[in-house]
Amino acid sequence: MKILGIEHIGIAVESLETDAPFWKHVLGLDHSGTEAVKDQGVITDIYNSGRGKIELLEALGEHSPVGKFLEKRGPGVHHICLEVENIHEAITELKENGIEMIADEPSIGAEGFLVVFLHPKSTGGVLVELSQKPK
Amino acid sequence: MKILGIEHIGIAVESLETDAPFWKHVLGLDHSGTEAVKDQGVITDIYNSGRGKIELLEALGEHSPVGKFLEKRGPGVHHICLEVENIHEAITELKENGIEMIADEPSIGAEGFLVVFLHPKSTGGVLVELSQKPK
Repeated sequence: MKILGIEHIGIAVESLETDAPFWKHVLGLDHSGTEAVKDQGVITDIYNSGRGKIELLEALGEHSPVGKFLEKRGPGVHHICLEVENIHEAITELKENGIEMIADEPSIGAEGFLVVFLHPKSTGGVLVELSQKPK
Repeated sequence: MKILGIEHIGIAVESLETDAPFWKHVLGLDHSGTEAVKDQGVITDIYNSGRGKIELLEALGEHSPVGKFLEKRGPGVHHICLEVENIHEAITELKENGIEMIADEPSIGAEGFLVVFLHPKSTGGVLVELSQKPK
């Protein structure tokens, strides 16, 4: 598979109101947009670093994946996302390598990207998302 | 401060021998180098993603920062690193904003970068490293 780079780092926050200011005002990163991704149970608040994005994640409810993560581990890095050229090819290749995927088919994530998540037990403890830019 | 982008994502691994193959062979990332950074008590094994690097971290001893992280949280994302244009200016600006730094002065990290770490309690739970490329 062809990996194009780190697309973003997903960071679980208790509240965008109290945690976003570090990224926005202290670091001075450009704000790219805020969007609810209901399929994934999150509000994403995205900042451009110049090379890769920072995606702050606020849970839509405590039973959402990010809500459960916050309860178990507290705020911090939730996942990392690598951009791939072709997500369908990537999924096929990962399955051939015995990597466990959280879903078999990509879904639509923030900013219209096609996305899929790899299970942390196949990656050394890291929740890895792959994404393909919308055409 | 001027942030140039995500420099790398630092991932704590139990063993480079067993965990590196996912990044190197399954994802097929280019290997950039392996280096012991004794000051930080780690062996770093670095891969280029095309846009930002993946830095695998194996602890040099269980009392090192990465050793303690592994004992407490297990393998996973240990820190994220943003590249800045001028690390001394960044430190001054962060202190003016009340951000707690783990050290007051930069030290030499992997690949000769000048680096400094921000305390997670000032960033919303994320261990953030800033780095400046060696000239």
